[in-house]
Amino acid sequence: MTTLRQDADYIVGEAIKAVLPDAAVRRALKGKTFPGRLVLVAAGKAAWQMAKAAKEELGEKIEIGVVITKYHHVMGAIAGLRCFEAGHPIPDEHSFQGTQSAIDLVSGLAKEDTVLFLLSGGGSALFEKPLVPGAELQDVTEQLLACGAEITEMNTLRKRLSAVKGGRFAQLCAPAHVFSIVLSDILGDPLDMIASGPAYPDRSSCEQALSIVKKYGLKLTEHALRLMEEETPKELANVETLVTGSVRELCAAAANACRALGYEPRLLTDQLCCQAKEAGSFLASVARSHSGERAAYIAGGETVVQLTGCGMGGRNQELALAAAQGIAGLNTAIFSVDSDGTDGPTDAAGGYVDGGSLAALQGMGLNPDAVLRENDAYHALEKIGGLIMTGPTGTNVNDVAVALLRE
Amino acid sequence: MTTLRQDADYIVGEAIKAVLPDAAVRRALKGKTFPGRLVLVAAGKAAWQMAKAAKEELGEKIEIGVVITKYHHVMGAIAGLRCFEAGHPIPDEHSFQGTQSAIDLVSGLAKEDTVLFLLSGGGSALFEKPLVPGAELQDVTEQLLACGAEITEMNTLRKRLSAVKGGRFAQLCAPAHVFSIVLSDILGDPLDMIASGPAYPDRSSCEQALSIVKKYGLKLTEHALRLMEEETPKELANVETLVTGSVRELCAAAANACRALGYEPRLLTDQLCCQAKEAGSFLASVARSHSGERAAYIAGGETVVQLTGCGMGGRNQELALAAAQGIAGLNTAIFSVDSDGTDGPTDAAGGYVDGGSLAALQGMGLNPDAVLRENDAYHALEKIGGLIMTGPTGTNVNDVAVALLRE
Repeated sequence: MTTLRQDADYIVGEAIKAVLPDAAVRRALKGKTFPGRLVLVAAGKAAWQMAKAAKEELGEKIEIGVVITKYHHVMGAIAGLRCFEAGHPIPDEHSFQGTQSAIDLVSGLAKEDTVLFLLSGGGSALFEKPLVPGAELQDVTEQLLACGAEITEMNTLRKRLSAVKGGRFAQLCAPAHVFSIVLSDILGDPLDMIASGPAYPDRSSCEQALSIVKKYGLKLTEHALRLMEEETPKELANVETLVTGSVRELCAAAANACRALGYEPRLLTDQLCCQAKEAGSFLASVARSHSGERAAYIAGGETVVQLTGCGMGGRNQELALAAAQGIAGLNTAIFSVDSDGTDGPTDAAGGYVDGGSLAALQGMGLNPDAVLRENDAYHALEKIGGLIMTGPTGTNVNDVAVALLRE
Repeated sequence: MTTLRQDADYIVGEAIKAVLPDAAVRRALKGKTFPGRLVLVAAGKAAWQMAKAAKEELGEKIEIGVVITKYHHVMGAIAGLRCFEAGHPIPDEHSFQGTQSAIDLVSGLAKEDTVLFLLSGGGSALFEKPLVPGAELQDVTEQLLACGAEITEMNTLRKRLSAVKGGRFAQLCAPAHVFSIVLSDILGDPLDMIASGPAYPDRSSCEQALSIVKKYGLKLTEHALRLMEEETPKELANVETLVTGSVRELCAAAANACRALGYEPRLLTDQLCCQAKEAGSFLASVARSHSGERAAYIAGGETVVQLTGCGMGGRNQELALAAAQGIAGLNTAIFSVDSDGTDGPTDAAGGYVDGGSLAALQGMGLNPDAVLRENDAYHALEKIGGLIMTGPTGTNVNDVAVALLRE
């Protein structure tokens, strides 16, 4: 019989495998055909992997293409594609060059042609062609930050200062069709937010943009003010979007892996958002109440860490450690991982505890509450073999936490 | 069609009704027969209500009895029963007199006789006969508090300094049978903890007691030291215990009420223990992920408030208010109540929010996060009609929170 820890490692492995950029792109392209010419544009932190998988899947069908990703993220040449490495999170000249190159490629396509647009996290900086000089864009951003504007307010303005954001890239592709595969890293998959939605209808209006300028008394040039009055597309008839590799798929893959091991999976949420350690306590409460079942309670999303100390850890390690007390003595495990393989500023993907963890910690003179106050989950979990190590995975679709219950 | 708020009020009413001491006692006595003599002993904050319900149910069958409750908690005479009002949370002479009176009643009963023992919260102070002088007991308690002893350590010692705690009252009843109905107010119903378990086998040992004395270097009299060596009963063949009115029943009654209104009930936990506002965020995450179902997600237990401001509120009001943002715009309500009808130092039982609450709050210039930092949930909820008022209910079996989802 496998141990709870072995089951946990299997579930983590399967869940992450399902949301790797390659797997996600292959799934999205399955059975897909393209009538006319096919041009590839990939942007984001996972752009290279996504483009590579698409090339392997579609081969010669992809005529030409552009890949724009972070520095050191191009792992080799891909036949027929031009790869750019560029600045992130601040866009630089290479971002602009790569984006211009993509615009050139999609210009002059026909109605039957398709732009295969592969988008992943980080696309906001990597895929950009500002309509104002870089310094001016920087200045507007700083003014917005200084007056405490919300992220949606910032995006409403920045979309209007960009030639590709807020659905405008899809407009540039017209009359060609855009088949957009989005690797989501934002909870709830708000497609107009991911990379500022280059190929997605924009929900913000000029009216809102101008009222934000007024509300904060922003100082804009005449040119920028005129740009505020240019509307972004509200409908895009030429775009088909497929969201993949989202936290929903991460949870679904975890659920499938649980079922394969004989645990009845129950999805609590795939939009978790609360304090990491409190989520751990909540999950432990759920596990205690359902003790005796052979079941898996799954919560995907992204928690936050409350910083009160200066130890080492991450939100998934805190979630797990905080659950140790609540499941002490039970035939239960609770574990949580970041799908990108690096939880907080550590080399661990997350943390694992089970019914024996509290005693193990106490046996080493460690009190979980005190450790959490120091935000030092890493070292405590390390001592009891409670770290989950996967190495960097090349994907980033938030976290998944599982409470695994045995009879 | 009813509103979400009407449904919430109905569910709260039904849930609390099911755990009122009277209802709980009546349910426990249903179909029960007693062959020999029947003597009643009731102790705790709900002792009078429990005794009254038992008397109404069993009538003349109850020959004689003793009721020990808090000051101002006796609501009238009950035929054949002697009522004591006594000190709580610090026991006083009246506690000791009432308890002695109970001991006298149960002494000399026969094997076929029954002691109907009705126990509720507060019994630890109200039902007590110390084996050392009151001042000495006080001194030991203070020494334990001063050295930071845990509650289980304190109980291990105090049980040995008592003639009735740690199962000893049941020993005094022997050879008579003890039918014990416990109205639980501690999560997970640890029967040896509720009122220090007068009629429940004790899990602590003399060895543990002596090691605690040694660990903290406690100064005990010769007499007290000898008492540490007297073992408490580990088995009680003459006792039958029925836990009722616990948070489990509160949740079950809420689930039944939800089902009656057409919501599929799903119990997340009946042992919730985490920060109030984080529990609210977690519940909102669950509601968001299951949006579109007609279902009720139920979490019973007891959360804690983190004090960062100096406003007015309670844990249930904070839980509800914290959920407002996460369910904004959804056809969903989240509400939470304390079964005793008074949440924190307020006159409200708890709080209610739904998909429109965030907008309502913002319309009044209120930001939920800022309100929660001030711990001022009461005034914010009051303004949007989000307080749940039941008045004091006469029971205390923790809280229940519900996320109510409509299509």
